[in-house]
Amino acid sequence: MQRGFAPEEFSARTVRAQKLMQAAGMDALLLSCEADIRYFTGFLTRFWESPTRPWFVVVPAAGKPVAVIPSIGEALMAQTWLDDIRTWRAPDPADDGISLLVDTLNELGPRSIGTPMGAESYLRMPLASWAQVQAGLRGAVRDDGGIVARLRAVKSSAEIAKIERACAIAGRAFGRVPQIAAVGVPLSQVFRDFQRLCLEEGADWVPYLAGGCAQGGYGDVISPAGDAPLAPGDVLMLDTGLVWDGYFSDFDRNFSVGPAAAETIGAHARLIEAIEAAADIARSGTTAAELFIAMDRIVTGGAGGSDAGRLGHGLGMQLTEGLSLIAQDHTVLEPGMVITLEPGLQIAEGKIMVHEEDIVITDGAPRFLSPRAGREIMEI
Amino acid sequence: MQRGFAPEEFSARTVRAQKLMQAAGMDALLLSCEADIRYFTGFLTRFWESPTRPWFVVVPAAGKPVAVIPSIGEALMAQTWLDDIRTWRAPDPADDGISLLVDTLNELGPRSIGTPMGAESYLRMPLASWAQVQAGLRGAVRDDGGIVARLRAVKSSAEIAKIERACAIAGRAFGRVPQIAAVGVPLSQVFRDFQRLCLEEGADWVPYLAGGCAQGGYGDVISPAGDAPLAPGDVLMLDTGLVWDGYFSDFDRNFSVGPAAAETIGAHARLIEAIEAAADIARSGTTAAELFIAMDRIVTGGAGGSDAGRLGHGLGMQLTEGLSLIAQDHTVLEPGMVITLEPGLQIAEGKIMVHEEDIVITDGAPRFLSPRAGREIMEI
Repeated sequence: MQRGFAPEEFSARTVRAQKLMQAAGMDALLLSCEADIRYFTGFLTRFWESPTRPWFVVVPAAGKPVAVIPSIGEALMAQTWLDDIRTWRAPDPADDGISLLVDTLNELGPRSIGTPMGAESYLRMPLASWAQVQAGLRGAVRDDGGIVARLRAVKSSAEIAKIERACAIAGRAFGRVPQIAAVGVPLSQVFRDFQRLCLEEGADWVPYLAGGCAQGGYGDVISPAGDAPLAPGDVLMLDTGLVWDGYFSDFDRNFSVGPAAAETIGAHARLIEAIEAAADIARSGTTAAELFIAMDRIVTGGAGGSDAGRLGHGLGMQLTEGLSLIAQDHTVLEPGMVITLEPGLQIAEGKIMVHEEDIVITDGAPRFLSPRAGREIMEI
Repeated sequence: MQRGFAPEEFSARTVRAQKLMQAAGMDALLLSCEADIRYFTGFLTRFWESPTRPWFVVVPAAGKPVAVIPSIGEALMAQTWLDDIRTWRAPDPADDGISLLVDTLNELGPRSIGTPMGAESYLRMPLASWAQVQAGLRGAVRDDGGIVARLRAVKSSAEIAKIERACAIAGRAFGRVPQIAAVGVPLSQVFRDFQRLCLEEGADWVPYLAGGCAQGGYGDVISPAGDAPLAPGDVLMLDTGLVWDGYFSDFDRNFSVGPAAAETIGAHARLIEAIEAAADIARSGTTAAELFIAMDRIVTGGAGGSDAGRLGHGLGMQLTEGLSLIAQDHTVLEPGMVITLEPGLQIAEGKIMVHEEDIVITDGAPRFLSPRAGREIMEI
């Protein structure tokens, strides 16, 4: 499979954004975060791990996006479809890109500049710099009205293929868990080895791994691994977000260490039942809330959810992005949206189990991108 | 080595912050980013990979920090030294922690609230939410004046031990590069295998890997790997930021694929010479700028740097943090600061070589945390 995208994909994304910008009366769109910048440019690097330097892309009313970036990124940005790349030598304590950004925005967005200000967005630059930028602008800055998030939510077939490849890699790694997990192996070792399996199966990198392991269910799903060894009766869960060519898979698998207790077997089957209930109705026109309700009915009896807060979410260039499967999210599903179904249930006080699959929305039944798990919990 | 820190370490950090807050007339300190929150709490999770939920910690004028977080994190936060953990069920489109944060800040910071606004800081919450928070506050919000960055820059011996362990893991992985890199192996495969080696040698995870590979020097140091195979005469560079218990190593190694050309040998030796020049003067009282000048004299003949922008930086809970080795950074080094020395030079147009080591500042000669490389470039 080809890495990257054809230039036509980026120009199509840009034109779509520009139509929405025009309708909203916006001259320019200011982007500062990794995924948003990559969406419009193809600029892919792990260098974002360093918080030091701000990076900007401005989408003008017409024509290609313009990059306003540290010079260390010029060579890589020059390999994208962009022509206009403006750089400064960062870090510069006196003017870390501020005047260059102000000049660019005043040129391209003299009246009205949009930037993502809504849910799960942030401005990746110091607040002090932002105040200086705002003071220098001729145009007014306002919320982009969700333009960027809306575009990113619906994936092209090329994007879906990358997510599907990431899911296949994770699926093969999960299939090899019996090789690395057994009674007596510390959970921290299982975590290290599982990441190794993901790489061996073809992941570019493994930005996310969480999980849990405890008797009859785990306490939460975001903890790092401790050094306690696996014991008979434990339920082991591994939840990975691995990346291929900048696109994530995000699903988990549960394992019973030794023969599973009746409660464990029952809980796992119920989670799969919840997945089936959601998959039965997940298609173009269904809402996020309807998927939540379908799963919540099964995992809590319709109590309205749990402390985890949601039963799935959008997926793509980020581990989680876009919609949430909660009762209050009435986003209407469209073909090409990729989402996770992530029901969880409480087995006992402080003991939960969570299962997750990745699907793509179509006009008919959803297509599973993750290799769909069976009702029976796997035993190791 | 023990994971985490004793509660006394966190209380000492908090008391130090509170003294600086008092001197600056600040009632409370608002934190929203991973490393800042972890510094005061010990809250360690890879869940930050998901951008959906905002997380907050407020350091009051006296007493322990207060967490204002999504309920999905309550169980893990309850394992830290904090007592006061306030949660909401996130995501909540109607009020995603805003009123809870406002109430907490009005209680703990009724007059003056500091938050990091300077270099490499950002506010990890949507701008729209931030506007709502500000509208609800009784106290004024201002820059923390670098309090958090200043505290984090000087590491405790327990922190240094974790960084040293991460460096030792990376050192062992670099020692095994000849096992994975050879003529004909695609660079993307080398990247995957090198991350596997890091895990095998004990890394918890590998958030960062960059590098390059090309004839006689590479074009930049932030690109992802392509699928082109290694060829004789290539210079291969791998630069990793791996993590053990939440602390980073960050250094690179260069390799000659087959016998090295005279320019390659000379360039590598000159980089090591630059490291030596910096190490000769790196101690308590030296400034960041002085280290830059010492290295720049050797790598550019004193031209004042290159497009990379700096020749080293602080290191710790983040891949890069704090000071920059540039001519304009006059930060005075203190014992306990951990920094990287990262000289780079241009061998020919579009061909560079970069070398990096990690050191801790003392009153005398610096201690190398990375296993110091020799003058001769390694051949594979």
